[in-house]
Amino acid sequence: MSRFTSEAAFLVCIDRHFPNKHPHMIRGRGDDCAVLACPERMSLSSDLFIEGVHFRCSYFSPADVGYKSLAVNLSDLAAAGAVPLGFSLGLMVPTGGGEEQAAASAQSGEGSASMGAEAYWDAFFEGMAELAREHNVALTGGDLSKSPMLGVSVSVWGGPAEAEGVAAPFLHRSVAQAGDCIFIVGEFGLARTGFMALESMGRDAENLYPAAVQAHLRPVPRVAEGQAIARFAAAKGESGRIGLMDISDGLARDLPRLIGADKESGLSVELEIPEEAVHEEVASYCLANDLHVLEQATLGGEDYALIGSCPAAWLDELCDAVPGVRVLGKVAEGEVHMLNGLPWEPKGFDHFG
Amino acid sequence: MSRFTSEAAFLVCIDRHFPNKHPHMIRGRGDDCAVLACPERMSLSSDLFIEGVHFRCSYFSPADVGYKSLAVNLSDLAAAGAVPLGFSLGLMVPTGGGEEQAAASAQSGEGSASMGAEAYWDAFFEGMAELAREHNVALTGGDLSKSPMLGVSVSVWGGPAEAEGVAAPFLHRSVAQAGDCIFIVGEFGLARTGFMALESMGRDAENLYPAAVQAHLRPVPRVAEGQAIARFAAAKGESGRIGLMDISDGLARDLPRLIGADKESGLSVELEIPEEAVHEEVASYCLANDLHVLEQATLGGEDYALIGSCPAAWLDELCDAVPGVRVLGKVAEGEVHMLNGLPWEPKGFDHFG
Repeated sequence: MSRFTSEAAFLVCIDRHFPNKHPHMIRGRGDDCAVLACPERMSLSSDLFIEGVHFRCSYFSPADVGYKSLAVNLSDLAAAGAVPLGFSLGLMVPTGGGEEQAAASAQSGEGSASMGAEAYWDAFFEGMAELAREHNVALTGGDLSKSPMLGVSVSVWGGPAEAEGVAAPFLHRSVAQAGDCIFIVGEFGLARTGFMALESMGRDAENLYPAAVQAHLRPVPRVAEGQAIARFAAAKGESGRIGLMDISDGLARDLPRLIGADKESGLSVELEIPEEAVHEEVASYCLANDLHVLEQATLGGEDYALIGSCPAAWLDELCDAVPGVRVLGKVAEGEVHMLNGLPWEPKGFDHFG
Repeated sequence: MSRFTSEAAFLVCIDRHFPNKHPHMIRGRGDDCAVLACPERMSLSSDLFIEGVHFRCSYFSPADVGYKSLAVNLSDLAAAGAVPLGFSLGLMVPTGGGEEQAAASAQSGEGSASMGAEAYWDAFFEGMAELAREHNVALTGGDLSKSPMLGVSVSVWGGPAEAEGVAAPFLHRSVAQAGDCIFIVGEFGLARTGFMALESMGRDAENLYPAAVQAHLRPVPRVAEGQAIARFAAAKGESGRIGLMDISDGLARDLPRLIGADKESGLSVELEIPEEAVHEEVASYCLANDLHVLEQATLGGEDYALIGSCPAAWLDELCDAVPGVRVLGKVAEGEVHMLNGLPWEPKGFDHFG
């Protein structure tokens, strides 16, 4: 097996996968700092992606790790309705240079059994680069370090979407008012289902729950939909009336945040979620494993769907403007959340729970 | 001992130390993305700071860890001559919540013996916040994760310095020409000396080598000097003739990068470094430990001094304009580097070496 024994080997591999040119990047990788050509306003977010915490090498292929570490960051930009421009990468290279991770991944049936560290990193960067190309986002620089585990730290930034030549607003949470509709773009509970199936079955889970496994390994950041919602907000002229965020910690934990209930807005959600609204793989997994479908669907994090709030009167137009919007319920006065007519106490994922 | 058991506890502690308002920050922490008011061009850099790789908790107090993780990033901006504006923080919270690190730090004589995790993080954030306040740089957001070790991932960005109302250029490396002067602002080899003394003596090293220990634990990013050099470059009207970078991997490894010798510029350095140019603590440590002073001084990394190149004719003016500039030698044609009249083969620090 080959080893990646120097910083230079990594830099060569990175240069092979990521162009060092981009209209937004005046000076790219290879200096102390990158120099960026910036729009007047930028939207910026950072996320960590750590082996043993956010992913396991036994069922994440290296390309999945590279892909998802960038995807979760792009999802934050999607939640602001931003156009991704660039990202920086802090790569924590595990003791052993990646050979253990390569072996774990090979055992899972992903990659070839003879995959060494070099092939591992090549696949890792290609998984990341594929998504970067899709969104035309530049890798502007970063840092490499040894570390006890494989870890990825990404910071990503973007500019405003354009609506008829004018910058659309960046959207955010906590703007809801009583009577507003709550909507979603994407699935909920599907990634958690994939995670649970992968944990118990390994990659064989793909045969029974292909969409769920994909949702956990390769979540799709809803970048186009986020921008469409931002353009819609710009067109309405009252952009401050549309709230948006992504579900990273589960509907139960993130919906209260969307309406500011975590900051004493005095608002609550009234959800109407028929079981048919839940992805069929969530339902079939729950049936096979004696789980409650709506609990699974609302507790499950990491779906990276978008959830939003908007005035009820705008809903039909919004649905026309943005493919995939579905209504989950509405915003109400008071502090008791309701789900299908019953009081609901949302719990969800705490990163240290 | 108290434990930090939830994400919320960290966020409260962060809000106590870092204001969530800044002229550059239109939307701050607490949403998916921060929104920044940007100058036309920004300079951006990212660095990892990992326990057991970049620092040891046995002699780094929590405030030192917080301070240095931001300082090494600000140094990259200093090397571009930029004005720091904001940073994002990816914090890897070790298993145990920081209690092990607190205990290790208490044993070293830093902090009180009863310091628990809460006091540890409080001191960590205060060490970072102190430096952030000094440079008026906003913490715009970030991410928290569990992790096997304590780790900090920082991305930092800044705008151009201003020279008579006009944006000064961002400086970079690899612009040297034969005949240019090579200069330095700051010490070299001092941080490595502090590191070696701390490794063998623990915090007692402070008694014998106070400046060296300080250079390793609390390096000073040369932000004001970097900006002064950028303004000088702007005033000369030919900003592309001044090269600048910071020494993170040692003079021996970084000087060839400054003049593009790592990219086949065909240039070399001719250094004249009398032993008096080396900090007296480096000399006394070398004497006590049977080390070669110039080798120690040129191999040592992490000094975060600035090194630069400029036309020889500009040197006197540069020295007047920027306090602390010292000449190290000049740039020559050819590929053989010289140190005090003898051929010199610079080696230095490889992050995976």
